[in-house]
Amino acid sequence: MPTTLIKLSELENGQEGDFFALMSAKEALTTKDGKPYHRVAFRDAEREVSFPVWNDVPLAEECRERWEVGEFYKIRAKLRETTFGPQLEIRKIRSVEEKDSEEGFDPSMCLPRSRVDPEELFDSLLAIVEEKVADEPLAELTSAILNENRKTLLRLPAATRNHHAYAGGFLEHVLSVTKTCVHLAEKYADMFPDLEPALDTDLVIVGGVLHDIGKLRELRATPIGAEYTPEGTLIGHMLQGRDILREAAVDSEIDAEKLLRLEHIIIAHQRLPEWGAPKPPMTPEALLVHYADDSDAKIQMMFSVLEEDTTDGPFTSNRNLLRQSIFRGE
Amino acid sequence: MPTTLIKLSELENGQEGDFFALMSAKEALTTKDGKPYHRVAFRDAEREVSFPVWNDVPLAEECRERWEVGEFYKIRAKLRETTFGPQLEIRKIRSVEEKDSEEGFDPSMCLPRSRVDPEELFDSLLAIVEEKVADEPLAELTSAILNENRKTLLRLPAATRNHHAYAGGFLEHVLSVTKTCVHLAEKYADMFPDLEPALDTDLVIVGGVLHDIGKLRELRATPIGAEYTPEGTLIGHMLQGRDILREAAVDSEIDAEKLLRLEHIIIAHQRLPEWGAPKPPMTPEALLVHYADDSDAKIQMMFSVLEEDTTDGPFTSNRNLLRQSIFRGE
Amino acid sequence: MPTTLIKLSELENGQEGDFFALMSAKEALTTKDGKPYHRVAFRDAEREVSFPVWNDVPLAEECRERWEVGEFYKIRAKLRETTFGPQLEIRKIRSVEEKDSEEGFDPSMCLPRSRVDPEELFDSLLAIVEEKVADEPLAELTSAILNENRKTLLRLPAATRNHHAYAGGFLEHVLSVTKTCVHLAEKYADMFPDLEPALDTDLVIVGGVLHDIGKLRELRATPIGAEYTPEGTLIGHMLQGRDILREAAVDSEIDAEKLLRLEHIIIAHQRLPEWGAPKPPMTPEALLVHYADDSDAKIQMMFSVLEEDTTDGPFTSNRNLLRQSIFRGE
Amino acid sequence: MPTTLIKLSELENGQEGDFFALMSAKEALTTKDGKPYHRVAFRDAEREVSFPVWNDVPLAEECRERWEVGEFYKIRAKLRETTFGPQLEIRKIRSVEEKDSEEGFDPSMCLPRSRVDPEELFDSLLAIVEEKVADEPLAELTSAILNENRKTLLRLPAATRNHHAYAGGFLEHVLSVTKTCVHLAEKYADMFPDLEPALDTDLVIVGGVLHDIGKLRELRATPIGAEYTPEGTLIGHMLQGRDILREAAVDSEIDAEKLLRLEHIIIAHQRLPEWGAPKPPMTPEALLVHYADDSDAKIQMMFSVLEEDTTDGPFTSNRNLLRQSIFRGE
Amino acid sequence: MPTTLIKLSELENGQEGDFFALMSAKEALTTKDGKPYHRVAFRDAEREVSFPVWNDVPLAEECRERWEVGEFYKIRAKLRETTFGPQLEIRKIRSVEEKDSEEGFDPSMCLPRSRVDPEELFDSLLAIVEEKVADEPLAELTSAILNENRKTLLRLPAATRNHHAYAGGFLEHVLSVTKTCVHLAEKYADMFPDLEPALDTDLVIVGGVLHDIGKLRELRATPIGAEYTPEGTLIGHMLQGRDILREAAVDSEIDAEKLLRLEHIIIAHQRLPEWGAPKPPMTPEALLVHYADDSDAKIQMMFSVLEEDTTDGPFTSNRNLLRQSIFRGE
Amino acid sequence: MPTTLIKLSELENGQEGDFFALMSAKEALTTKDGKPYHRVAFRDAEREVSFPVWNDVPLAEECRERWEVGEFYKIRAKLRETTFGPQLEIRKIRSVEEKDSEEGFDPSMCLPRSRVDPEELFDSLLAIVEEKVADEPLAELTSAILNENRKTLLRLPAATRNHHAYAGGFLEHVLSVTKTCVHLAEKYADMFPDLEPALDTDLVIVGGVLHDIGKLRELRATPIGAEYTPEGTLIGHMLQGRDILREAAVDSEIDAEKLLRLEHIIIAHQRLPEWGAPKPPMTPEALLVHYADDSDAKIQMMFSVLEEDTTDGPFTSNRNLLRQSIFRGE
Repeated sequence: MPTTLIKLSELENGQEGDFFALMSAKEALTTKDGKPYHRVAFRDAEREVSFPVWNDVPLAEECRERWEVGEFYKIRAKLRETTFGPQLEIRKIRSVEEKDSEEGFDPSMCLPRSRVDPEELFDSLLAIVEEKVADEPLAELTSAILNENRKTLLRLPAATRNHHAYAGGFLEHVLSVTKTCVHLAEKYADMFPDLEPALDTDLVIVGGVLHDIGKLRELRATPIGAEYTPEGTLIGHMLQGRDILREAAVDSEIDAEKLLRLEHIIIAHQRLPEWGAPKPPMTPEALLVHYADDSDAKIQMMFSVLEEDTTDGPFTSNRNLLRQSIFRGE
Repeated sequence: MPTTLIKLSELENGQEGDFFALMSAKEALTTKDGKPYHRVAFRDAEREVSFPVWNDVPLAEECRERWEVGEFYKIRAKLRETTFGPQLEIRKIRSVEEKDSEEGFDPSMCLPRSRVDPEELFDSLLAIVEEKVADEPLAELTSAILNENRKTLLRLPAATRNHHAYAGGFLEHVLSVTKTCVHLAEKYADMFPDLEPALDTDLVIVGGVLHDIGKLRELRATPIGAEYTPEGTLIGHMLQGRDILREAAVDSEIDAEKLLRLEHIIIAHQRLPEWGAPKPPMTPEALLVHYADDSDAKIQMMFSVLEEDTTDGPFTSNRNLLRQSIFRGE
Repeated sequence: MPTTLIKLSELENGQEGDFFALMSAKEALTTKDGKPYHRVAFRDAEREVSFPVWNDVPLAEECRERWEVGEFYKIRAKLRETTFGPQLEIRKIRSVEEKDSEEGFDPSMCLPRSRVDPEELFDSLLAIVEEKVADEPLAELTSAILNENRKTLLRLPAATRNHHAYAGGFLEHVLSVTKTCVHLAEKYADMFPDLEPALDTDLVIVGGVLHDIGKLRELRATPIGAEYTPEGTLIGHMLQGRDILREAAVDSEIDAEKLLRLEHIIIAHQRLPEWGAPKPPMTPEALLVHYADDSDAKIQMMFSVLEEDTTDGPFTSNRNLLRQSIFRGE
Repeated sequence: MPTTLIKLSELENGQEGDFFALMSAKEALTTKDGKPYHRVAFRDAEREVSFPVWNDVPLAEECRERWEVGEFYKIRAKLRETTFGPQLEIRKIRSVEEKDSEEGFDPSMCLPRSRVDPEELFDSLLAIVEEKVADEPLAELTSAILNENRKTLLRLPAATRNHHAYAGGFLEHVLSVTKTCVHLAEKYADMFPDLEPALDTDLVIVGGVLHDIGKLRELRATPIGAEYTPEGTLIGHMLQGRDILREAAVDSEIDAEKLLRLEHIIIAHQRLPEWGAPKPPMTPEALLVHYADDSDAKIQMMFSVLEEDTTDGPFTSNRNLLRQSIFRGE
Repeated sequence: MPTTLIKLSELENGQEGDFFALMSAKEALTTKDGKPYHRVAFRDAEREVSFPVWNDVPLAEECRERWEVGEFYKIRAKLRETTFGPQLEIRKIRSVEEKDSEEGFDPSMCLPRSRVDPEELFDSLLAIVEEKVADEPLAELTSAILNENRKTLLRLPAATRNHHAYAGGFLEHVLSVTKTCVHLAEKYADMFPDLEPALDTDLVIVGGVLHDIGKLRELRATPIGAEYTPEGTLIGHMLQGRDILREAAVDSEIDAEKLLRLEHIIIAHQRLPEWGAPKPPMTPEALLVHYADDSDAKIQMMFSVLEEDTTDGPFTSNRNLLRQSIFRGE
Repeated sequence: MPTTLIKLSELENGQEGDFFALMSAKEALTTKDGKPYHRVAFRDAEREVSFPVWNDVPLAEECRERWEVGEFYKIRAKLRETTFGPQLEIRKIRSVEEKDSEEGFDPSMCLPRSRVDPEELFDSLLAIVEEKVADEPLAELTSAILNENRKTLLRLPAATRNHHAYAGGFLEHVLSVTKTCVHLAEKYADMFPDLEPALDTDLVIVGGVLHDIGKLRELRATPIGAEYTPEGTLIGHMLQGRDILREAAVDSEIDAEKLLRLEHIIIAHQRLPEWGAPKPPMTPEALLVHYADDSDAKIQMMFSVLEEDTTDGPFTSNRNLLRQSIFRGE
């Protein structure tokens, strides 16, 4: 008698069930004493379970020969909580078939989601461009780049590592940076009304929107996250973002110096050469975009450390992206 | 017949006039070939004129023996624009006397002013504390520190160097930082509602208000700017700011851990040890205050470079605070 | 028939015995192939034995559920030397009970001891203050700080890591630093009799005594070593040491500038900002205390490497605190 | 009676003569004691003479108002060797007129020349491409870029500073780098015949030819040397060189991966981020081009230091581009 | 029936055979769960096989007690390809005996070989000295040093790590460096004919030949590679190379300044202090030798990374000597 | 009537007198406006007077053509205190002649003296070797090196710059370092009696005595200080000191490993590669010598800054060897 269809993320300790899942990792390893096994992982939108498949179990050959990362599976398994995390005892497993959609299968049910709907993030970004950017050709150019890449942008994660590998991660970061750009640009334009040349708030805002646009070419979204393209590794998103801008600007009426300033913002946004910027920010606009980006990247890293650290005590471990402990409180 | 009273900043090339001025610099120098002279400067609120007084001119002895930096003078002089800047040919000079107030003398007429009235800046800062800081004892503690030092804060410049030496410079910087703190704190609290522990927006905002409060002890305001106290040089404003906070907190009901977190924000706000921070930011609140402060400091430096650079061409010289050229435009 | 009571450190290979021991470590681990176990350690004053407790052995549950680091146990076990170090086969184990003191149990018998009796170290330090420090209020202030914290100081280890975790470690370091301070201060006062201002030998010596006094608040002694307090991690012993000094000085007649110089010595003793000093040494006294401290810390690290390295050959491994090989000789 | 026409570089001490010269510098300065003057320089192909024009001499006004850097003049003057270098006492001076060509005036007679005729350097470079680069589309692309920019390349100096400001300086450097590329590529292809992928000698050679091609856009040749364009300062020759390559490749049949590898060589040729490279060399070809370029740049700097240093003794001063002394010999 | 004699490097999967092999590694290890074993390796000239010997197998005691790294063995074993690399199932094993030479045993058959016969490399190096070095005493001194150490040089590997541990590795590097020295010296002597002092091509070439000669004393060749001598670790090959040169020069007629310049080349060839050079290159000759050496070392590292990396995909892993990924191609 | 013979250092303001002096500096300079002059300095043991000689004064030609640095002169001059320091109005000047010794001229009367008689310093150093160094061959070797170079050592300054240019400066530094070595060696040998290998106090002490011995070859004493030899600049005193040691040890019975350890101390005494040490200290003895040397060098720099700084206020300027301000007190 078939068990009822359930979600992987809803299985409780000891419960057996049928569910759809994405294979998100498979790695051939060997214990120190030479015993071979595979470490595999399956996930749905809210839970990822990772466990070993030993070479001498019945599923071993199928695992080794046929299971593939990025494929969807229908699985019957029992979940077992161990002191080493939840594990699956797989009873049955097969690739998802066309007819499974009748039972409700949809690839998106296995993929992690951003906090906010990517479409909403995209629309907010576009709205800022429309409301805040006064220079017509610049606003049009920016909207055009966003709209032409809408589909990819909605799916683009912010980084290649698994834990940020959710669709919309890119937009989440870019929107946050752009909001800070709006704040800083308006504040300083207000504080320094007599500056020559005047602070170009348009450029600060568009700089926020487009600073990372090169990730469209640097990364390649895959079902299980994103990976670097060869061009991305050899050239880098700062240069590729400038390419995207220049290609889009060919038919634009944007002022030449304004375009140059925007190219500069993109290639200088990481500020220091040791962080990969071929030039340091040489305009106030470039400096503000740098700070909006850098502060967002670092605070989000710190939030991630707080979310993911599993140690006890008032401080997190210092084995994390920031290589320092964070204070949680007592 | 006496010339009419005029302002130093309104004298035109070749015009002679009587005016009140502050002596803002006097330095005994010698040319490379051994000829001694004094370089002196006089200023009112909007213009500063700097020129040499040679040892063999009639005023030389008076200059050497009696003129003092920080004193106010009534001067009759002719202004002469030279390719080396404006210079004064002094006809008469005497110290300001009591009765000069009848003719309209007021020390503040000789002192540079901040863009905005310091009282207004102070009130804005206090208003943010009252409106945005929810924790009662924390808000009271912060307001108390501000109010107790109101008079000094209104006069405190942001730095010791001459060109920032205007009353209110400190408040201008602190208010700008605090506004960014409000923006960042509210944005991230909104984006990350489930963070544990939750982002403490109160601490970010108060951190902005108090991060540089130690400058009350590090610096000593003088008529011509500010200078370091010995304690300031040997101990530094980060530690001294923490002292001010701890002394004020003795009678407060502020939560102990909250106080500790605030102390940490103050000593960590310069982030990297090579910038003088004894500890790196170990809380999200400290990291946000760091970015709000650092971005304000650097952009204001860049604005100063743009304002003060006297070279021609599309770029400024690179002989400035930032040691790099800034693009002005073509 | 009960085996005779013996010391853990006296057990020989293959010998079984009853002894008292402190549990000094317990860590839940898993082998690479997912097998769970606990690594535990027991110690007396002179030997620490560390070994795995597998999840399928009789004691496993008791180990997991009840044994606690920092508790004392009465154990019957056989010691077995393996190529992987000595291990214990535990036959019986129970928590120490009150009556065990009749059999001679005393917590101190399980704790590592410093080379020299901490009381002797304390007395030597106090004697230096009394003999060498001429300024009365300064000598009194220093002695008072030592005497008020005598009990804690006697127990304070020098660091948090296990291998230095012996009571008296702090005093051992401070006495050694102070002796070098005496040597350097007297030598340079003698060599440079005409210096203005004269070298203040009192300050150099007291600087040696108090440079690390903030560790009283940065660390918390535990039976198995020391751990950082939250205040210690967020603020640091240099600032906390200055706090202790300032609090103690409130009722002292110490000269204000002398106090300021001493505060400076404490916060500058690590010299470079990347080593955590908010200010570099700006007085000869601070520079000498820095060198006395730094040279003692580094040479003791090198001695530790020599003592603890277990490799063969003329050089130690370079996997140590100093990240370099040390020459032992051929 | 007119003096005979002579070359500036042939004038001897005390000799008066008529000659054509380029004004290569004019700077408004003031002595420390406030005396204004202009420092001017005139040059022909082999000598540059720099001297002050005081504000109170007959020519002062003409100098201030009319002389322009980059213009050619016919001058009658006496050369005087002083302990402070050669100086000119100008008797007459006027701008060069059309008819002067009858007397033999030709602008190139006033410009410094490279050691070797730029046309010869250009031809040598082109010959290497033709003989050594086996891949047809790559060789054609490279030749096309060179030929299309032939006229500018012949005039391009290697750098903006005055002492390298000779036409052909760019080609001299590029040819030297390319020769080393040929040497290294052939040697290693020979030593490592089995490498996978095989070393692409074509790419190493073309990398040498094109590594600095972006200087076509980064710099703007002027009669008195070269100056940075705004695009050059804000974007930089590495990115601009990649642009030139990509634009030229649009209609080429060059293999896509080969083009990518060549783009990478160009942007990575300065190797370290702190030297401005957005990516480090990630292919053997890019690493070899880096070394060929870096070694040529540094040894030419050292040669320049040896040529230009004017101190006595076995070592040069350390006040030079390399910030170190060079050993000349005893 | 005895299996036929075969080479270890010719054994195929599943094949059993008798062969001679050198034991190249033996390390006592324990799995994380405390199970002891030895990891051993055997090699012939072209293959090295590494595998565990568990403590409970028949050969375990013999392995632990008698097998020695650096000894030669006759082995009968079956080769088994596993997903974890090839492994040997040893049936029989004994030390090589004298009579085995009758069966064709020769120690050199078990040692890795350089790409080119070391004698050929040595002769090429000597030929360069004879043909290119014009200064008689210098050429003689150089040849003498090479000839006196001929036997050791033929066997010296380039480094201590196993994978470069082939006889001739040193000569391979030195010959490559020297060839680049010849190229650079001749090119620049040609380009800069008027330099004062003239570039000494002899010194550049001899500098290439002798720059690493101190490795004769820094390293000690062993059958399984090379190891550092205590003198090598405490003093280093740059200083030891200078010693060798000075000792050899005692009876030479070499010019004193030339000798000093050559000593300088040797100690400065690593250029930067953080790379171990006590002095930076202060002569053009020393700078050229530095570049010839540095470029060869780095490109050979990159080639090694490409040869040895076992990951898939367009890029190598970044876990290698260079700490970066290398592009292989798609 | 001749003025009475007096010392330069005893002349008072306005006083004219005859005295002997050493010319310690002469530099051809030009003012910014092109006026040539020489800056010259004359000194006796306790005062140095520096002043300009203008090209148009009677003595100018004699100054330019004949006066030489390092020569002794008999001078009649009036001393005039100016706000720019004391200056000499020279009436008569001639080179010292043989007969002047009758009037009491002795070159040493014009040379600065160390605080303590160099012979006394030398004897103290030798006494430490004899009393403290237990190993006979080591003590003999050390004494022999000192005694053989006694004459030069007595005259050797510590550095090349003028203000340390007194005979005995080298011995002053070495004796101070050696005293600290004795203190540290004895303290740690006492604290760590069980160390393996035991701390070799002999080596620490001899290391102190000989660490800078290479300055015998790196520097060349001149009447006006010391200058680098070419060998000193190209090779350096650490390597040259090791040479001196090795040459002296040829006929010694010193233990080979002890000699190696001593060589290592000498080349490692500056500890970090960026400070010129080819190897870091790899023995406790080398580390202690490093600290004894480094602390003495830095504290003496700080004392020099205090002695030489001429600014007012509680802090010195930061324009000094240490690039930081020193606190003098209020």
